[in-house]
Amino acid sequence: MTLRHIVSWKLSGETREARDGQAAEIIAALEALPALVPTLNALTAHRNELFDGDNYDVTLIADFDDEAGLSAYVVHPDHVVAGAVIKKYAVARVATDFTL
Amino acid sequence: MTLRHIVSWKLSGETREARDGQAAEIIAALEALPALVPTLNALTAHRNELFDGDNYDVTLIADFDDEAGLSAYVVHPDHVVAGAVIKKYAVARVATDFTL
Repeated sequence: MTLRHIVSWKLSGETREARDGQAAEIIAALEALPALVPTLNALTAHRNELFDGDNYDVTLIADFDDEAGLSAYVVHPDHVVAGAVIKKYAVARVATDFTL
Repeated sequence: MTLRHIVSWKLSGETREARDGQAAEIIAALEALPALVPTLNALTAHRNELFDGDNYDVTLIADFDDEAGLSAYVVHPDHVVAGAVIKKYAVARVATDFTL
């Protein structure tokens, strides 16, 4: 069984270029996590490319064995560090969690 | 190259059970599309399972060769039919589009 965690964020940058920079910083912070968080099976993070302004800016796709794996990820110190980067720039967050 | 289109919706149902029913109708309408829309390479649709109320309710993951494939999908008559089902119930929509 795989629990998939999908999160999208809208970022605060006033221009697309500003949000490109913010997104790059967030994506780098997130993409460091698979090597650091044992319960995280897979993670990709993506910069939105179309419908700038209407679409959100960054999407995370992360896979876990189960809800306990997601919970351990959420409180993991390295995830907290990545979360702090996100909090600097995110003005909105939307998530869903579901079993594949 | 693959263009991935991820959309999440929050639904109007007052209770989780009401939103379960709405989500099932939306997911069925979306999952019919791969057989009907030529430019749609893959599609899965998922009901959110955790953090009900905070999380959104349904997430679509759809893959295309490129932006033209996504545009053809958006205007395809069968997608328009599915979109009408979504419009009955969705109170919020968040999307991102990115290249894998």
